[in-house]
Amino acid sequence: MSELLRKTIEMIPPLDKAAMAQAQARQNLLTKPQGSLGRLEALSVQLAGIQRQAVPQVRQKAIITAAADHGIVAEDVSAYPQAVTPQMVANFLNGGAAVNALARQVGARVVVVDAGVASDLEPDARLISQKVAYGTQNMALGPAMTENQAVQSIEVGIEVVMNEAARGLDIIGTGDMGIGNTSASSAVCAVFTGRPVAEVTGRGTGLDDKQLEHKIAAVEQALEINKPDPARPLEVLAKVGGFEIGALSGVMLGAAAHRIPVVIDGFISGAAALIACGLAPRLKDYLIAAHLSAESGHRPLLDYLGLKPLLSLDMRLGEGTGAALGIFLAEAAARVLAEMATFAEAGVAGKDGD
Amino acid sequence: MSELLRKTIEMIPPLDKAAMAQAQARQNLLTKPQGSLGRLEALSVQLAGIQRQAVPQVRQKAIITAAADHGIVAEDVSAYPQAVTPQMVANFLNGGAAVNALARQVGARVVVVDAGVASDLEPDARLISQKVAYGTQNMALGPAMTENQAVQSIEVGIEVVMNEAARGLDIIGTGDMGIGNTSASSAVCAVFTGRPVAEVTGRGTGLDDKQLEHKIAAVEQALEINKPDPARPLEVLAKVGGFEIGALSGVMLGAAAHRIPVVIDGFISGAAALIACGLAPRLKDYLIAAHLSAESGHRPLLDYLGLKPLLSLDMRLGEGTGAALGIFLAEAAARVLAEMATFAEAGVAGKDGD
Repeated sequence: MSELLRKTIEMIPPLDKAAMAQAQARQNLLTKPQGSLGRLEALSVQLAGIQRQAVPQVRQKAIITAAADHGIVAEDVSAYPQAVTPQMVANFLNGGAAVNALARQVGARVVVVDAGVASDLEPDARLISQKVAYGTQNMALGPAMTENQAVQSIEVGIEVVMNEAARGLDIIGTGDMGIGNTSASSAVCAVFTGRPVAEVTGRGTGLDDKQLEHKIAAVEQALEINKPDPARPLEVLAKVGGFEIGALSGVMLGAAAHRIPVVIDGFISGAAALIACGLAPRLKDYLIAAHLSAESGHRPLLDYLGLKPLLSLDMRLGEGTGAALGIFLAEAAARVLAEMATFAEAGVAGKDGD
Repeated sequence: MSELLRKTIEMIPPLDKAAMAQAQARQNLLTKPQGSLGRLEALSVQLAGIQRQAVPQVRQKAIITAAADHGIVAEDVSAYPQAVTPQMVANFLNGGAAVNALARQVGARVVVVDAGVASDLEPDARLISQKVAYGTQNMALGPAMTENQAVQSIEVGIEVVMNEAARGLDIIGTGDMGIGNTSASSAVCAVFTGRPVAEVTGRGTGLDDKQLEHKIAAVEQALEINKPDPARPLEVLAKVGGFEIGALSGVMLGAAAHRIPVVIDGFISGAAALIACGLAPRLKDYLIAAHLSAESGHRPLLDYLGLKPLLSLDMRLGEGTGAALGIFLAEAAARVLAEMATFAEAGVAGKDGD
């Protein structure tokens, strides 16, 4: 483990219980029956604990979308060709992808990171180029990357989020792009949750039955050959992970170290959360699960992390699309707490006429 | 039935199948695996069918929050005193309620209607005063209102939404305020769904076990005495409904007649939808169920209508708070369809390398 990674993990503080108690106390004074805003109330209290302020704010927002390629595509595990990874990176930069539309709606900037795309991308000042390598190796034949590369990919994420924090940041969402990355995520998910590969492997971008069977066999082979140890998260990342997965793990750790709440997207972000929480169990308190993906491994993954998704809309796109919707709900939670009048301010009678 | 009501119902057109087919065709060209945005895609197609345009828009938004009082409060069915109804109307007008915070976030105007509050409200130019009466009668002793008043309350909603449509309106959300109105909604729900009162009656603003038992008995008594016939929706509204419930039924019917999609809030809006769909079954295609309320009758109610809620956040506040969140998701659906690049535009390879 590198110095930066070790320090980042050490920096993650416990939630601020006093701020949480103050936020809860304020919720109870607002002009509504106590608890009647359900999970939005709990979310506002979590945000207070993370941001260390009784009235948290969700104004400056970023979605960090990390892209990388996967050697496992040699096993024919995706419905789309690898060329789509760099093409979609260009689409993100040009504002034409789904995550761009949703990020615009919620007022979040989209930060695009090349953590390991397998080809040279067009130079673009808006792209953060931190390629660890030109894609991972084929995990069905051996480790996807070295442990050094695993650490390096996490450091990419830590540095990106530190730079974004310096620009001002109240919340971040995570996003991913990488043809083949549901295979890597299924492998990571199977290792940590102990569930059978077949149970946590889905159709990704749209495989048919036969292709799905083939994908399951490839992931099983990757686990068989590599035998990653769930007690060693960096080893799991190195053996069956991906560079964007590592980068997103780093984004989560770096954000928590800076008291920034993290809205995690779907299955790939979930795999990154498994690794990051393996390295720093305290991180869990900083995570907000945006949605339940249609990808079959996502539910056991979130259950393992003890996170309950806010939305369930059968989405399975990644990119940070779910995270954008989750950021909206986090902002809603913060706005209600900040903007609502109390019973006293509004001159409204309380329960049972109090 | 009045001339206005009859004409409004007749005006509701079927959805525009051609626009829906065009929207679906465009979804399939956008730079994402087909179907990967899940329910947002289906929602965009529904909006296209309602608005009669291949690329629907959700820019001008209003939440219509109708307030009224209920004679059933004499039976001690609410944790809050009746004075809270006018106090909360003032809170809405002053921007201090939860619905105001959420409406500001999504860029929706809040239109507050007095459809039958039991007291005289402070004169306020922003309030739409269309009091049908000073609250309903106690439905546990007889009909809540006359059938003429039922029609009148629906007409209030139709007129409000027609005026709002004239100001420009792409979508509306419904909201309610009225101490005692979960009791009326439970009665309406039991009549239409045929479920036992105990199953569809919840704790409202926060009753304890004993108070809940008492509330169930009062609703049962209201049904026993009035015997409303579910085949006659106006009779149901008159016997066990409320003025804000009638007004929201009218809002829904009027919106559909003007091809405006309606995001329905929680349990009280759901009761209004039962009555409105009873009068005009075609209305159902115009409704978007924002969320599943924590109120126990809401799930059977939505099942009866064949609507699947977008969110499930244990909210139970009403006012239009859930509708505001639903409007956000409808806008997200419309934005994705309008703003995303196609595979051809972005130069992205299709599935299986097409």
